[in-house]
Amino acid sequence: MTAAADPSKAVLLLSCPDRVGLVARIANFIYERGGNILDLNEHVDVEEHHFFLRVSWSLEHFSIPAADLESAFTPLAREFRANWQIRLSGKRNRMAIFVSKYDHCLREILWRHSLGEFDIDIPLVVSNHADLAPLAEAHGIPFHVIAVTAETKAEAERRQMALCDEHGIDTIVLARYMQVLSPEFTGRWPGRIINIHHSFLPAFVGGNPYRQAYRRGVKLIGATSHYVSDELDEGPIIEQDIIRISHRDTLDDLVRKGRDLERIVLARALRLHCEHRILLNGRKTVVFD
Amino acid sequence: MTAAADPSKAVLLLSCPDRVGLVARIANFIYERGGNILDLNEHVDVEEHHFFLRVSWSLEHFSIPAADLESAFTPLAREFRANWQIRLSGKRNRMAIFVSKYDHCLREILWRHSLGEFDIDIPLVVSNHADLAPLAEAHGIPFHVIAVTAETKAEAERRQMALCDEHGIDTIVLARYMQVLSPEFTGRWPGRIINIHHSFLPAFVGGNPYRQAYRRGVKLIGATSHYVSDELDEGPIIEQDIIRISHRDTLDDLVRKGRDLERIVLARALRLHCEHRILLNGRKTVVFD
Amino acid sequence: MTAAADPSKAVLLLSCPDRVGLVARIANFIYERGGNILDLNEHVDVEEHHFFLRVSWSLEHFSIPAADLESAFTPLAREFRANWQIRLSGKRNRMAIFVSKYDHCLREILWRHSLGEFDIDIPLVVSNHADLAPLAEAHGIPFHVIAVTAETKAEAERRQMALCDEHGIDTIVLARYMQVLSPEFTGRWPGRIINIHHSFLPAFVGGNPYRQAYRRGVKLIGATSHYVSDELDEGPIIEQDIIRISHRDTLDDLVRKGRDLERIVLARALRLHCEHRILLNGRKTVVFD
Amino acid sequence: MTAAADPSKAVLLLSCPDRVGLVARIANFIYERGGNILDLNEHVDVEEHHFFLRVSWSLEHFSIPAADLESAFTPLAREFRANWQIRLSGKRNRMAIFVSKYDHCLREILWRHSLGEFDIDIPLVVSNHADLAPLAEAHGIPFHVIAVTAETKAEAERRQMALCDEHGIDTIVLARYMQVLSPEFTGRWPGRIINIHHSFLPAFVGGNPYRQAYRRGVKLIGATSHYVSDELDEGPIIEQDIIRISHRDTLDDLVRKGRDLERIVLARALRLHCEHRILLNGRKTVVFD
Repeated sequence: MTAAADPSKAVLLLSCPDRVGLVARIANFIYERGGNILDLNEHVDVEEHHFFLRVSWSLEHFSIPAADLESAFTPLAREFRANWQIRLSGKRNRMAIFVSKYDHCLREILWRHSLGEFDIDIPLVVSNHADLAPLAEAHGIPFHVIAVTAETKAEAERRQMALCDEHGIDTIVLARYMQVLSPEFTGRWPGRIINIHHSFLPAFVGGNPYRQAYRRGVKLIGATSHYVSDELDEGPIIEQDIIRISHRDTLDDLVRKGRDLERIVLARALRLHCEHRILLNGRKTVVFD
Repeated sequence: MTAAADPSKAVLLLSCPDRVGLVARIANFIYERGGNILDLNEHVDVEEHHFFLRVSWSLEHFSIPAADLESAFTPLAREFRANWQIRLSGKRNRMAIFVSKYDHCLREILWRHSLGEFDIDIPLVVSNHADLAPLAEAHGIPFHVIAVTAETKAEAERRQMALCDEHGIDTIVLARYMQVLSPEFTGRWPGRIINIHHSFLPAFVGGNPYRQAYRRGVKLIGATSHYVSDELDEGPIIEQDIIRISHRDTLDDLVRKGRDLERIVLARALRLHCEHRILLNGRKTVVFD
Repeated sequence: MTAAADPSKAVLLLSCPDRVGLVARIANFIYERGGNILDLNEHVDVEEHHFFLRVSWSLEHFSIPAADLESAFTPLAREFRANWQIRLSGKRNRMAIFVSKYDHCLREILWRHSLGEFDIDIPLVVSNHADLAPLAEAHGIPFHVIAVTAETKAEAERRQMALCDEHGIDTIVLARYMQVLSPEFTGRWPGRIINIHHSFLPAFVGGNPYRQAYRRGVKLIGATSHYVSDELDEGPIIEQDIIRISHRDTLDDLVRKGRDLERIVLARALRLHCEHRILLNGRKTVVFD
Repeated sequence: MTAAADPSKAVLLLSCPDRVGLVARIANFIYERGGNILDLNEHVDVEEHHFFLRVSWSLEHFSIPAADLESAFTPLAREFRANWQIRLSGKRNRMAIFVSKYDHCLREILWRHSLGEFDIDIPLVVSNHADLAPLAEAHGIPFHVIAVTAETKAEAERRQMALCDEHGIDTIVLARYMQVLSPEFTGRWPGRIINIHHSFLPAFVGGNPYRQAYRRGVKLIGATSHYVSDELDEGPIIEQDIIRISHRDTLDDLVRKGRDLERIVLARALRLHCEHRILLNGRKTVVFD
């Protein structure tokens, strides 16, 4: 069921205004050209009258070369006034990981990557600190230190963007990267920058969410992975989870327990993203898991 | 998304050997006759090469009268060598509830039924004890006491079956009914008798699962709702959940905490069944939730 | 382990500045007078240097009559500068339940009460609507309708307080009571008014939390039971829990799923309160479960 | 709250037949000698009339030298006919980790150990395969390969025991060690060998639990950490947890999802053990978390 399982597979993600016949006509487009549908999910937002679809199919006996697939599908997509993309299984996401000093999320991603859990390439890790260089390099991944201060932030972001462009990055993961990105930066990768926030959003936005949670006396703490938008901690949520705490837990215990949540919630979100299982629906996501 | 939301809707549940074109051809069958697909889910068991589908569509502009729908679909189903059924939204499940003395599961079902959570009719409650008669009757549902002893069991089951036939029952819910049904009985409603077992199956099959759990010293207890088959507690599982316990919990605490699990797990399973979201796959279920 | 299990039991709840010897001296106070400690829990807030204790003991061979227990303990409590209370197992909490139109929380409390889960008396149910009168009366509990409008609110609260005083109420449960109480009202029962809020606080304070959650696109919804303080939804949290949702869930689904959370979270909080397992620590709670 | 937080702390774990005055007399033993109780938990198994206690106290102003503590407490313990042990915070558990080829549990333990989550020493890793040597050695921990076949098993265990003795090992962790230990081996470290089993015990004992779970069609999979006893997968359970699965999950998905459970459940159990929070109660555990 993973993209990696079949080297010649296509995945179509599509959303458009709802109308009669969408599933049938798209299924036919595939069937008539010899494609075998492996997996199809659809969803209708009945309030917004909007349609969402994910369909994957085998290209083994498909009559259209992979290179011509997009142009072949364009007329249908245009008729439907659709937002859409087709991903071929051979073409991996190229992912940059941004970190600061905490290692747990980076460590988790790199370990899972080494197990083949994510069908991606990771050409580089970027950080405002040098601390995690040995961890990246132990996995053979170049590590770039770009210091960020209030004064140098604009210039630092220019260098970060240049690095990402140079390496053909299509997804950026903020794996406990402790800097807020500018709208110029986030606008460059809409729906393609994934953050992990260490609270159950929308509770405890901003800095020090564990301290906020500790002071408020909640009985559960959470973690949220979301796409980054212009507004801090307001982007579309991909995945969330929680863990129970009690009065016995100190602030350090919250940090420790939260670490386990953060890395698992982020890993789940990355997997969903890399398998092209997520569509945006305004401020929300449709997740075909 | 509930069956009740649209009075003229059809749901097709179908499983068959996997082959190319199944989704497209079924979607076309609907589309060409003017049906608007509301919801489509499919699954392929890649080990068994078996295909499972649930599709619902609006009959508003459908060109075939509801009464002719089955015969119209039969040729396609035959070609696919499919197990299938079509349910029309107007036609409600008719459900009999079997109970003994515990009230919590019956109470939960009747309350949710009164809220419209299940799109069903409940023509009768059957019990081997009179205790819960007032509860059923407070909801205006006839309550039948059929005592069961080792000697009278065969005769009691004959009377139960006659009652169910008389009332056109298509689904039987064992809501903590403390008797084991004979293969003759269970064979009459294959995949249509739903039980709630008060453990995380396959742990603690048989009697007194809370006592078994207490003695074993587990740290979580569970509940399992499953279809009843010939073998005790071995039928296809629909839904399971657990709750955390500790050494502080007495056997009474397990019973109390388990009660909450049982009623919620059973209610979820009933809802899935009544919305025609479950297909059998041998000893397993495919649940399109 | 329930208060009901032993008819002659005392529970001491105590908090005071931390110092050496607190556990030993309190345990001795009990032991030297012939009391058998059944359960002892303590906690130290290491930031605030504050000590919290719950201890229960059998009065069977205790040398001091129950009536003299408070005066016998007062010198020690004074020396420790403690907040404290002693509850005798014979003396039940007297609880008033405030509701509006939703039945699920009231129904849950009354059912559990009938099972003996709470060791309390419920002398009355108060509502601003008549809808739930039959439910209360079916359990033999007087139901008082006191209408509340912006103009009559002050007068309505005076009547509510008079009713509670008349019936010797020591705990008030807001079981989806859809009115905000004035500081005059809440100040009368500090730490003794329990609310259920249908979100994971501090997310989605105020009105329509399910709608807020639906719009935000969260992947989990929650419920929170807390003591009521002057600030809306800001009182000390007793218990919280969550349930997973997805893009497939409509707002109605959130309401339906949330109902199950609300009644179970509220029931857990009531049980903890009635068993005298909760101590206040500023805006937080210490819960000895 | 961790043992590491205070360099001069004692923890007493004690169980004995229940009687009046146990808490008071033990608290007094500490108080009269100038000890400040930091944390006290007790539990009574009311069926077995057995008492369990964990108490920790500061030795800062304690009048008895740490070296004499055991002999000072012995008279009281003897009077109570207690099983007991006193652990001093300076004296760390010495833990050997046994592995085969799977890295995830070992990796998790070593990473958490590097963060200071466990207050232990890990003098060696033992394996029947060489695969994980680089991982252990990257953390500076000697790695010993001792091959095990049906013929060499007795000899292999002798070498393992000799190694453990030589390094003063008091706890052995089976971090997905794929060999069954003989009763001779397990009898050497009663209550001190910790295993992680990749199912929700007692479901799916023995080999290939994920395959068993996949075939049974359960909707949740689990992991269980327990002390090893003579009977396979029958020892006292320390900690369990589960994760939801569906028909979409292949056997590989179960293995992948289960990995996350295994390492977290094992890590929680180790932490509880290392902080001396676990007492044995026959086949069960009392866990003061």
